[in-house]
Amino acid sequence: MARALVLGAGGFIGTHLCAALRRTGDEVVAFGHGESPPWAQDDPGVAWVRGDFAYTALAVEAARGCDAVFHLIGSRSPALSDSDPVADLAGTVVATVRFLEALRAAPPRRFVFVSSGGTVYGPTDRLPIPEDAPTEPIGAYGINKLTIEKYVALHHRRHGLDACVLRVANPFGEHQVCQRQQGVVAAFIDAAVHGRPISVMGDGSSVRDYVYVGDVAEAMVRAARSPALAQRVLNVGSGRGCSLNEVAAAVERVSGRPLERIHAPARASDVPAVVLDIARAREALDWRPETPWEAALERTYRWALAQKGPA
Amino acid sequence: MARALVLGAGGFIGTHLCAALRRTGDEVVAFGHGESPPWAQDDPGVAWVRGDFAYTALAVEAARGCDAVFHLIGSRSPALSDSDPVADLAGTVVATVRFLEALRAAPPRRFVFVSSGGTVYGPTDRLPIPEDAPTEPIGAYGINKLTIEKYVALHHRRHGLDACVLRVANPFGEHQVCQRQQGVVAAFIDAAVHGRPISVMGDGSSVRDYVYVGDVAEAMVRAARSPALAQRVLNVGSGRGCSLNEVAAAVERVSGRPLERIHAPARASDVPAVVLDIARAREALDWRPETPWEAALERTYRWALAQKGPA
Repeated sequence: MARALVLGAGGFIGTHLCAALRRTGDEVVAFGHGESPPWAQDDPGVAWVRGDFAYTALAVEAARGCDAVFHLIGSRSPALSDSDPVADLAGTVVATVRFLEALRAAPPRRFVFVSSGGTVYGPTDRLPIPEDAPTEPIGAYGINKLTIEKYVALHHRRHGLDACVLRVANPFGEHQVCQRQQGVVAAFIDAAVHGRPISVMGDGSSVRDYVYVGDVAEAMVRAARSPALAQRVLNVGSGRGCSLNEVAAAVERVSGRPLERIHAPARASDVPAVVLDIARAREALDWRPETPWEAALERTYRWALAQKGPA
Repeated sequence: MARALVLGAGGFIGTHLCAALRRTGDEVVAFGHGESPPWAQDDPGVAWVRGDFAYTALAVEAARGCDAVFHLIGSRSPALSDSDPVADLAGTVVATVRFLEALRAAPPRRFVFVSSGGTVYGPTDRLPIPEDAPTEPIGAYGINKLTIEKYVALHHRRHGLDACVLRVANPFGEHQVCQRQQGVVAAFIDAAVHGRPISVMGDGSSVRDYVYVGDVAEAMVRAARSPALAQRVLNVGSGRGCSLNEVAAAVERVSGRPLERIHAPARASDVPAVVLDIARAREALDWRPETPWEAALERTYRWALAQKGPA
């Protein structure tokens, strides 16, 4: 039995990661900035710590005695990072560097940082994108994720921190809420559930690598448990690309309802296409994205329907 | 006649840059954290502004009406960056992002950022290093320089800032002082002048690209004045490598004195070899490092002798 700290446990990925850790019997210290969610209250194997990551001492205290530390704290969305870059830098990069420095006194067996496969590479013609591709992010969100990656690598190299960076593509699934501009799949499903039109950026040809969050959580658990990592930066995605128009069509199929499209201008921080090469994670973690796209979409749709409640 | 702001004007490179700008008739707003140096006091074409770069408003006010803004402010040395990474991040990256945001209201015609060719690439077998090589810095100094580069690129792309990043190798020359762990050439010459032993890191085989600071200042002036830049990240170095042992031997030749070597352990943030590929700067700026190595070294030695004063 092991013990894991999840920083950012109340978020979308954090919720799934905590569940995956609990399923395999790990104790979880769940660190979040809000009230403890029901799943944390109901489970004696979860200790909820409410706090602000910028207060380093609390996060370091939470890490005490933990075998693994998962760092999932970041800005909530690329759009939010761009709107106040100075605050975003302080809340993500500076807070993480302070945390890493403090962690040197009692490092965990493994430190897993969740980076962003969708933003750290920037525009590229080479698809799918391998981990050694150039990293030229065009938004503050990606720059900050990349900077944290570099500091994690520094702590690995210089201070022996056993670390792994996962560059996660566009995750989707249950518990993703769309009001934070967080996910296209969540937004389209929400529109389908509530009979509202969807907003399609640009001409809808923009391609992303949508990966089911349950598969992401599985990769994270493996990244924490794999005995020795030959590679410490790993893409985690589905490995295949899907355009906005294809997502819309798939949501129409799953929901059985046509979606009205409203076209919106493309965002400046969006690149035309991201598809991750996931060969390295397959090899290093003996992992693959198991959940078929339509099955995952259906699961997500049913969850969203249940959130709505009876009509 | 043009007007230029030099942020970090009191430093080693800043001093040479201000002189180069004045030689060609530019007015200079010289921003530094200390008292105005004699060269600034004696010249009506130089307005010295004493301030802390972290107080954004003062730096932005200094930029008003300037055609070019040169950003040379950074941590004083890689060793200092490593000793207090959080303060270093705040003083360099956060302060720069704040400055760039504030500058959006009245951008200069050209923004030139001085990055570090010696640290942003990290360990590599591929010498000389072209600008599109992987960037895997192994110290906080290089990580912070790289992060600022990315934010400069973001402001270029997103907000139309006409920007140029110069990845400067290991500059040396007059006015480089060695008490800040700033430069091997300055330290070895200082030892020769004062008859002290030199400290050689590791076995002395570590290779760097030493470039005369006058040539660096010339590249910076050209980076500000070139009408249109096809490339916005440019290496500035000599293009040739020189080991610590070779520097020591050259200083012995120039000074005519043997140097006693004391061997010290290599620093963790040091990579084995850096030699920059300068083809891009040659092309984009019609620039080359004109000053021969021994002539530059002799000039530097004579300056150091004069600093010592009559025996």
